Amino acid sequence: MSTPSRADFAAFDAADGLAGFRDRFVVDDENRIYADGNSLGRLPRATVEQLSAVTTEWGERLVTGWADWIELPGRVGDRLAALLGAQSGEVLAADSTTVNLYKLAGATVSVRAGAVLTDASEFPTDRYVLAGLAEQHDRELLLLESDPIEGVRPEDLAQACDGRDVALVCLSHVSYRSGALADMRAITEVAHNAGALVIWDLSHSAGAVPVRLGACGVDFAVGCSYKYLNAGPGSPAYLFVRRDLQEGLRSPIQGWFGQRDQFAMGTAYEPAPGIERFLAGTPPVLGLVAVAAGVELVLEAGDEALREKSVALNQAAITLHDAWLAPLGFELGSPRDPDRRGGHVSVRHLEAWRVCRGLIERDVVPDFRAPDSVRLGFPPLYSRFVDVWDAFDRLRALVESEDHLDVDPTPARVT
Amino acid sequence: MSTPSRADFAAFDAADGLAGFRDRFVVDDENRIYADGNSLGRLPRATVEQLSAVTTEWGERLVTGWADWIELPGRVGDRLAALLGAQSGEVLAADSTTVNLYKLAGATVSVRAGAVLTDASEFPTDRYVLAGLAEQHDRELLLLESDPIEGVRPEDLAQACDGRDVALVCLSHVSYRSGALADMRAITEVAHNAGALVIWDLSHSAGAVPVRLGACGVDFAVGCSYKYLNAGPGSPAYLFVRRDLQEGLRSPIQGWFGQRDQFAMGTAYEPAPGIERFLAGTPPVLGLVAVAAGVELVLEAGDEALREKSVALNQAAITLHDAWLAPLGFELGSPRDPDRRGGHVSVRHLEAWRVCRGLIERDVVPDFRAPDSVRLGFPPLYSRFVDVWDAFDRLRALVESEDHLDVDPTPARVT
Repeated sequence: MSTPSRADFAAFDAADGLAGFRDRFVVDDENRIYADGNSLGRLPRATVEQLSAVTTEWGERLVTGWADWIELPGRVGDRLAALLGAQSGEVLAADSTTVNLYKLAGATVSVRAGAVLTDASEFPTDRYVLAGLAEQHDRELLLLESDPIEGVRPEDLAQACDGRDVALVCLSHVSYRSGALADMRAITEVAHNAGALVIWDLSHSAGAVPVRLGACGVDFAVGCSYKYLNAGPGSPAYLFVRRDLQEGLRSPIQGWFGQRDQFAMGTAYEPAPGIERFLAGTPPVLGLVAVAAGVELVLEAGDEALREKSVALNQAAITLHDAWLAPLGFELGSPRDPDRRGGHVSVRHLEAWRVCRGLIERDVVPDFRAPDSVRLGFPPLYSRFVDVWDAFDRLRALVESEDHLDVDPTPARVT
Repeated sequence: MSTPSRADFAAFDAADGLAGFRDRFVVDDENRIYADGNSLGRLPRATVEQLSAVTTEWGERLVTGWADWIELPGRVGDRLAALLGAQSGEVLAADSTTVNLYKLAGATVSVRAGAVLTDASEFPTDRYVLAGLAEQHDRELLLLESDPIEGVRPEDLAQACDGRDVALVCLSHVSYRSGALADMRAITEVAHNAGALVIWDLSHSAGAVPVRLGACGVDFAVGCSYKYLNAGPGSPAYLFVRRDLQEGLRSPIQGWFGQRDQFAMGTAYEPAPGIERFLAGTPPVLGLVAVAAGVELVLEAGDEALREKSVALNQAAITLHDAWLAPLGFELGSPRDPDRRGGHVSVRHLEAWRVCRGLIERDVVPDFRAPDSVRLGFPPLYSRFVDVWDAFDRLRALVESEDHLDVDPTPARVT
């Protein structure tokens, strides 16, 4: 098969049923290829309006606005539940992913004996939170050594749990580095068979990959909203707790928004019935409005349609990698099987840091992940096939010209 | 002394050096008296612009904006430090008050033996958080029974600590209910003499009452930014840790933003040097921009000038209470000594709930605090003396007419 041309890619765009969604986002520079929507999504036009509206509402309604705002964590949570294959009353939007993971993992290990298990390559904040909780509760922290590209397979988990008493497993649905997509259903079943509960981190999957928490029998989930859900830098995260588990758990952070009959301001803490017990402090109203706007766009597009386009975008990327980059010393850092791959691909190169900086100078925004990964995410809501073509074309030209060798080889703190 | 007239109050406004600050806020309805800025502050005009600017920046800079945004918790923290009498590097803006209190109290009790002490009338979320931590760490929770109006006096704390091993004391600088202003310096000294560290909750004081954390030898503080700092509903909170205590403490919530050399994404958690170790997840950029805008206004006005006006507003309120409300069955629910009172006053009435609802119908927005308090806060940045006059005039007319008895006596969930 010959390498496709840019015209072929433009033809894919012309046939793309989701192409119209690009106009729903602010795109101020058509020449810049944004290949890092898996880190921070673009700004939806609706969000600009809705943030302005809620700011006006704060100014006009003042404290009386809380009569409506107080419902936001649950109301936005219910919309997220619709996206994640969960039920109303099982999801809340609140706090950060880190704090939400702390709440759910802390609640679990305080009532269940056994070790805490995660992947050695799990996203750092998840590993750090779990390591802290394991130490606080005097539990063993088990680190699974999964394949760095293919990620955690069910048999890896079965082996890691074998003969051990495991209370809790925490894994990412999609690996932040390689983009490996875990088999949520099979892995959850393995964990349950081993007597453990599972927390899935959906940060790199929700909005790019269909998530079916209910159908997969998942116990808990957390995730951020600033990647494929396009809710803005540091926007509120979410948490999911299966309904039948809620009553038996208490958040370690006993805040007034998790209190039954909150405004009675009673003496003793008594957790609210249902998912609200996992709230803590006052919810961030502006941030929640941005989450709501971002989630609606994803729901409108539909996760199956988004997934189909995402797979096609990434297959196109891999085709160009193989044709153009492999001869230049690159290796694919992501699974080749689309059924086991999420919304982004990584290409590996010894000079990945310099390649990333050089690409930014050529108006392509990728993401560097130490030590050797150039991470490329083309979110299907607003990415075009020609974006993939242009990004790889510029990447090839950069490395062929060796211009990347002019870049300072010391990684900066922020990429 | 005869009761002053509205013209007298208008004369106070004419002489008010801070009167010009009212125009820096959105005030859409001049007939509505806002007496609940101590719950949710008004919207500063600068915030409207700055929220719009940061939203635009998200859309244009996309992920590259993080090169600047990542500094926001510390940069906004430093401006808060200037307001709170702390040093640069001692304050962070992040998370909610609840989560920040959990982090600081959790860090402390994990390395110090002894009981946890708070006031029985402390703000609910603080009591709940401390009760949870005490249980998790198997510590005694001591509840001080302070005077419901005058609040915690140094001798109350000395007595409560006498003969006991206390690790940590947590108190509000200003009581959310009565408005009692604690003697921060004397109480901190009593706690230190008893071998305890102190966390002050500044939610109801910062922006209305000068705070001098350094001069008072304070160990820790937390506070919200949506009251007198006018940063919006659910805006990010802040935390203070005295510099010499930082290195010896670890947040129980080990997040990636608290990790040394964060983007190396190293295997083991190692807390960042300094105050950054008390960060957890990704900071809320939009919310932090609103905090920055709110804090600048307070710094510009100056906390001594704000305090002087705040005392005068509340003295005026108490004068009207005594003249008009006491004969109608009200009692003052706040200290009479202005040196022991914060930024708001409470008036107590058996039908406080109905009085509050009736007032809202007459375009005065107070706050109900169960069971019997009508809480009135006139933040000095934007409140006028005639607002106090009009609010009490409408309150008197409401109760004289007995129209409040027409209100449904069942408190709604949100007030």
